[in-house]
Amino acid sequence: MSNFEKTSTNQVMRKPKRGHYDHETVYEIVDASPLCHVGFIDNGQPFVIPTLHARLDNEIILHGATTSRLMKYAAAGNDLCITVTLLDGIVLARAVMNHSMNYRSAVLFGQGREVTGDEKMVALETVTEKVMPGRWADARQPNPTEMKATAVVAIPVNLASAKIRTGPPGDDEEDYALPIWAGVIPMRQQFLAPKEDPRLIEGISMPNYVADFLTANS
Amino acid sequence: MSNFEKTSTNQVMRKPKRGHYDHETVYEIVDASPLCHVGFIDNGQPFVIPTLHARLDNEIILHGATTSRLMKYAAAGNDLCITVTLLDGIVLARAVMNHSMNYRSAVLFGQGREVTGDEKMVALETVTEKVMPGRWADARQPNPTEMKATAVVAIPVNLASAKIRTGPPGDDEEDYALPIWAGVIPMRQQFLAPKEDPRLIEGISMPNYVADFLTANS
Repeated sequence: MSNFEKTSTNQVMRKPKRGHYDHETVYEIVDASPLCHVGFIDNGQPFVIPTLHARLDNEIILHGATTSRLMKYAAAGNDLCITVTLLDGIVLARAVMNHSMNYRSAVLFGQGREVTGDEKMVALETVTEKVMPGRWADARQPNPTEMKATAVVAIPVNLASAKIRTGPPGDDEEDYALPIWAGVIPMRQQFLAPKEDPRLIEGISMPNYVADFLTANS
Repeated sequence: MSNFEKTSTNQVMRKPKRGHYDHETVYEIVDASPLCHVGFIDNGQPFVIPTLHARLDNEIILHGATTSRLMKYAAAGNDLCITVTLLDGIVLARAVMNHSMNYRSAVLFGQGREVTGDEKMVALETVTEKVMPGRWADARQPNPTEMKATAVVAIPVNLASAKIRTGPPGDDEEDYALPIWAGVIPMRQQFLAPKEDPRLIEGISMPNYVADFLTANS
């Protein structure tokens, strides 16, 4: 199991026991959500923009309109920070100040490079398949106009760390005797019954891979 | 209804019809999730850190250990970007390149100020009550040692915008005739049955406000 180097940039300083630096733990969090928040600097101002992402080996794939500020900035090789967070529960402790959340977060650092040619199509397929496995082959493929209007950037992950909290509340020893209810309310992302496009042509039924997705995520 | 000024910092450039600048729309998104992603710059490097937040009028409240990098940086009045994102659905269009997500996001800009004295306790109550209404009065209140170890920062929102996508897929007119299934898979945050702390003392039952929270969010 290989690890990211620990530096002042990626080291988990607060609650260091919650920190993880191995590729497996970091990438499991990255892979668990299609949503990431990308941080970049423009004219000295920090920006945080939500977007979809996918991972290809040691690179994070972002895509967007060629005209978007984020894509232009990312393609130019500037420093980025990419964060993926999953909330797993509300932690109700006896003491107000011991309240917490159960969560998994991964914070990644790197600089982007623009992806072109055949690699660009593979990257778009990877992003689509992450959101809905099986969809790429079923949908209408990108045409040259669409490909030209879309930029793809790959960010090799230079540094990263994960931070994870699990389990019951952690209270001060003397507080466990207090007559206060304590526990965890688990949270998860739920998918509901699909809503057909009102303009769907007759005789088209929901694909099996959508049903499989719903079963896998139920 | 008052609006945030539109500048090059907060203006929604891509899909401008999805952009909103009124306080009501922006703050409704901010209030809908306890999680935000805070962007800041340290030594020229962008960082994006997930944390809890709450809103008090026109200010965003963050809290954390006085020793944390984020809190030190925020308390010092540096530029911050605070982003709140809610995923509402996977949008499966006929064309790969028209796939999307339904989402609500709010991107806020401002500089923090440290909160002290009575205002600090009110701010911590606001954050706690946002995560679980009714909890503050029931839990053991902060003591002086805990208050000293915790920093609270309020960020007046100088600029902000919201971006929202709702509804069915938007395909190219000629693609509507394709025999490809299209629709939306709605998503939401789900709360599951609470897990009692294994160290809970006998005879303490789950508070009504927890049951009310689960009903309100079911």
